[in-house]
Amino acid sequence: MNEISKTAPASVTTGPIVGSHKIYTSPEGRPDIRVPFREIPLDPSANEPPFRVYDTSGPYTDTAPIDLEAGLPKIRAPWIAARGFATVAPREVKPEDNGFATGAALVAACPAEQTIYAGNPGQLVTQYEFARAGIITEEMIYVAHRENLGRAAAHDMAAERIADGESFGAELPEFVTPEFVRSEIARGRAIIPANINHPELEPTIIGRNFLVKINANIGNSAVTSSAAEEVEKLVWAIRWGGDTVMDLSTGRNIHNIRSWIIRNSPVPIGTVPIYQALEKVGGNPDKLDWAVFKDTLIEQAEQGVDYFTIHAGVRLAYVPLTARRTTGIVSRGGSIMARWCLAHHKESFLYEHFDEICDIMRKHDVSFSLGDGLRPGSNADANDAAQFAELETLGELTKVAWNKGCQVMIEGPGHVPMHKIKINMDKQLRECGEAPFYTLGPLTTDIAPGYDHITSAIGAAMIGWFGTAMLCYVTPKEHLGLPNRDDVKTGVITYKLAAHAADLAKGHPNAKLRDDAISRARFEFRWIDQFNLGLDPDTARQFHDETMPKDAHKVAHFCSMCGPKFCSMKISQDIREDSLRQNGMVEMSETFKAKGSALYLKAEDTTP
Amino acid sequence: MNEISKTAPASVTTGPIVGSHKIYTSPEGRPDIRVPFREIPLDPSANEPPFRVYDTSGPYTDTAPIDLEAGLPKIRAPWIAARGFATVAPREVKPEDNGFATGAALVAACPAEQTIYAGNPGQLVTQYEFARAGIITEEMIYVAHRENLGRAAAHDMAAERIADGESFGAELPEFVTPEFVRSEIARGRAIIPANINHPELEPTIIGRNFLVKINANIGNSAVTSSAAEEVEKLVWAIRWGGDTVMDLSTGRNIHNIRSWIIRNSPVPIGTVPIYQALEKVGGNPDKLDWAVFKDTLIEQAEQGVDYFTIHAGVRLAYVPLTARRTTGIVSRGGSIMARWCLAHHKESFLYEHFDEICDIMRKHDVSFSLGDGLRPGSNADANDAAQFAELETLGELTKVAWNKGCQVMIEGPGHVPMHKIKINMDKQLRECGEAPFYTLGPLTTDIAPGYDHITSAIGAAMIGWFGTAMLCYVTPKEHLGLPNRDDVKTGVITYKLAAHAADLAKGHPNAKLRDDAISRARFEFRWIDQFNLGLDPDTARQFHDETMPKDAHKVAHFCSMCGPKFCSMKISQDIREDSLRQNGMVEMSETFKAKGSALYLKAEDTTP
Repeated sequence: MNEISKTAPASVTTGPIVGSHKIYTSPEGRPDIRVPFREIPLDPSANEPPFRVYDTSGPYTDTAPIDLEAGLPKIRAPWIAARGFATVAPREVKPEDNGFATGAALVAACPAEQTIYAGNPGQLVTQYEFARAGIITEEMIYVAHRENLGRAAAHDMAAERIADGESFGAELPEFVTPEFVRSEIARGRAIIPANINHPELEPTIIGRNFLVKINANIGNSAVTSSAAEEVEKLVWAIRWGGDTVMDLSTGRNIHNIRSWIIRNSPVPIGTVPIYQALEKVGGNPDKLDWAVFKDTLIEQAEQGVDYFTIHAGVRLAYVPLTARRTTGIVSRGGSIMARWCLAHHKESFLYEHFDEICDIMRKHDVSFSLGDGLRPGSNADANDAAQFAELETLGELTKVAWNKGCQVMIEGPGHVPMHKIKINMDKQLRECGEAPFYTLGPLTTDIAPGYDHITSAIGAAMIGWFGTAMLCYVTPKEHLGLPNRDDVKTGVITYKLAAHAADLAKGHPNAKLRDDAISRARFEFRWIDQFNLGLDPDTARQFHDETMPKDAHKVAHFCSMCGPKFCSMKISQDIREDSLRQNGMVEMSETFKAKGSALYLKAEDTTP
Repeated sequence: MNEISKTAPASVTTGPIVGSHKIYTSPEGRPDIRVPFREIPLDPSANEPPFRVYDTSGPYTDTAPIDLEAGLPKIRAPWIAARGFATVAPREVKPEDNGFATGAALVAACPAEQTIYAGNPGQLVTQYEFARAGIITEEMIYVAHRENLGRAAAHDMAAERIADGESFGAELPEFVTPEFVRSEIARGRAIIPANINHPELEPTIIGRNFLVKINANIGNSAVTSSAAEEVEKLVWAIRWGGDTVMDLSTGRNIHNIRSWIIRNSPVPIGTVPIYQALEKVGGNPDKLDWAVFKDTLIEQAEQGVDYFTIHAGVRLAYVPLTARRTTGIVSRGGSIMARWCLAHHKESFLYEHFDEICDIMRKHDVSFSLGDGLRPGSNADANDAAQFAELETLGELTKVAWNKGCQVMIEGPGHVPMHKIKINMDKQLRECGEAPFYTLGPLTTDIAPGYDHITSAIGAAMIGWFGTAMLCYVTPKEHLGLPNRDDVKTGVITYKLAAHAADLAKGHPNAKLRDDAISRARFEFRWIDQFNLGLDPDTARQFHDETMPKDAHKVAHFCSMCGPKFCSMKISQDIREDSLRQNGMVEMSETFKAKGSALYLKAEDTTP
């Protein structure tokens, strides 16, 4: 792990996820828009059609060959081309973009072709601008079809899709139309992070009235890094369900590694530009300035980064509010900006130049992820004055960014005990005009290093239920080290289940379908179906194999927990059959209840 | 895993948990009552006393030698002896008690000495009876001291212990007195499962106004089993924090394996007697009857089992309510009783003989864990008519058991999406007169086999917050196979963190101390303290080692996430120092806020 690999990525994980295959379907009348899903065929005994699931894995789980040097198919290219943007000469790559790496230490850039576009003033560029102008883009059509799992219209939905739930004010439609997507984006309640220089993107929507999304972080660091490893981490993270990926690299070769990542990413890529800016000034926050930051924004926007974390809410005046905290400032970006403000005793240049930042981001439709640089790093600091002062500023900045035509989401904590979570969500909705909330966890206790994917999944599921649109994953290595391949998978699956638990509790009409399908498989001892309908068929099967390794066990009408004699599921099936035979039983039950089943009767009285 | 070990347990895991040592302290005036804790010494730079934590691990983490054949020290023996119970000749062990195992297939019983006591009518036997009579038992003094972490009185508590929280009606005292314990038990709101034939027990209290407890299941099964493995699983489960352990064995040698478990268990042992009763009738539920069940109750009560799951709420009339469920009846006990009711078309013999069951359990102070035999096995079946009909019956039975002098807790689901969890808690409190709730999870989604410790930890943390007194763990193997040693540890730690998150959210005065201690260690780069203050020091250290293996890294003022240049914690510390130097900063912040920090000002206006 400590050695820095100098090689470009040679190959990545490809092939279908066990027990499923890729399909593409198109919205009515738009055969040019092909939206990916996975379908899980079920055992014939189920008498059910293949089960369709949302799929983030891109072409890597399809059968077409992958050529990392060429990049993924540019599916958005015709849509973007039709919008009449100017092509621009790319900003020249500078030595500091790659940390002054030279010779053998320099990772080559991805050679994939790229046309660089920039929007002009007065032109509709961002999804927000199109939405405000009443125009439905291809991206909006795409995500509507995707959120519906490809179904054509509401009347196709099975009755069982009508789920109950407590949505806390979210307005989940039974069927998502492109017009609904447009209206949500126009209201600022949802975003489609989609840089016009990222044509390889399979668009996804982030908003409270859609499926809860998750983000996985990758990135090399000053301590350990590798180019091949980062691209594989991307592919690996989206294979298991990452809806977006943030590249948090902080070492050398940042620019060129990112070129490999973006050209080969079907999901939105987010970055924290201040990290690279800091690298460019030798790691000394005091040396940062607007010029180097601005240049970094342009560099990354032209490459195709879909959203930027901008810590413009860390204002000079808020820094002293953190001085008595238990854990100070734990956001890297937040601490860099706080350091800068203190060193110069000046207001944050991000805050001061926010208008200009908006202009750059609008030009390429880079979405804002307004960073929570003052998020709590411990339960002790949750919901304190520093955190909430910053959130209020993020609310101001949201409105500025909207006025500039930008898409915006808001980052949130962090470390928050359960009873303080809802306050965060409610305040965010209020302060930020319902702009999508994007939270890290939150961790609900600090006492379990090594298990923070779990301490945070509890908070993530809850805040997702309350209205958070995207959950940033936490891996088992949080606070301890850099996640490896297994950690990334564990983090993604854990957050996928938390997001799904949130969808279920909100009453998302699509969510319950999968629970019900797997429950039927469980009840009917369709072991293989149970594995394949789950989030991680490989692990499920491996766990089953540990106790019952034989193939025959995969069709056994019992399991290792009880063994053949004791099986409660088997007994239940017998009961069901008996009960359906004995028509009178339901009536008998009614009679019994009429006699007052709520009372405790003496034994002799209850004998039939 | 498939081979049945015939050997008695030879040795188990002993020795202190890394970074801590065992201590015992006594309540004032009672040097004979020695209550165990663990103390975690901190780095001298912390300038903090050793951190004390609740400890369930028994003498195994102490320095005294362990002799499994002799059993643990009988610390309750003098208390019990003073109560004047009759000693009785033990029920003779019958061949069916061990599944007719003979010769080499028969596991020898634990040879530890045992005096068997039985209470007489009119005598105070159970903790409930003592409590109702206004008498404070040694067990009550013990648990009060334990819950306070050994502190002598409320005024010893640091100011920081005063935690906020939303208790949903729980009444958590700042300091737990023996009289408070007594009053809670007398009201039926808490139990101390403590069979008078389990003198090795270190008493623990289960109730909404105390620390949330967790249970770990062990047990051999018809498919795989081993005596040594089960005792080691017990020791292993309590090492990591299991407050009680249920022995769910279903194979042969049940009686003798249990003798090893109880004689060597410092925590309450629970069982589901119907499992052994079923073994005795060859696994055919139809052949069960009151006689064999009663005999099993006496057998296990005399051995010293501390609580019995009794599925007396599965009434004949409720069985048809499950016929149209997605997953039928998933409780083993529930399905056995449902099968019996249907086969004989008679009311449950458990329900009919409930008075007699109470009499047997009272005689030895075996607590009830009224089983939820009709709990949902899928989100689809959550909160349905069958589940709630049974819960209402459990409410009736609770009152019957109290009238008989028994201690009672109530088992709960199972599989419940987040928005339906609180309804369960509220209904349980209402129906069952606030008797402690003891839930399995609940799992908040069905779609993640292999990760059900996490899907359920989400529900467990929430229901614990809402008022559940004990959480039954779920391991990663749930639905797939039998948990191995690693799974047991993962399950226990996961539930420990969920229980702690619940304590924090309820505002338990002791809970926040540990979070704050670990957060301070984190902020001050006391890596070893951070590992040791966590729930699993070994894993935390191992994860840190993976990225930063050197000893020097354990004192490094940075970590692998950011590397030395980027460290946000380091920057925060600088800020703190700066800020404390610049006294004027707080005032400046106030001035700023007075100028209206909630407004977005144009860049030029905000320049200081």
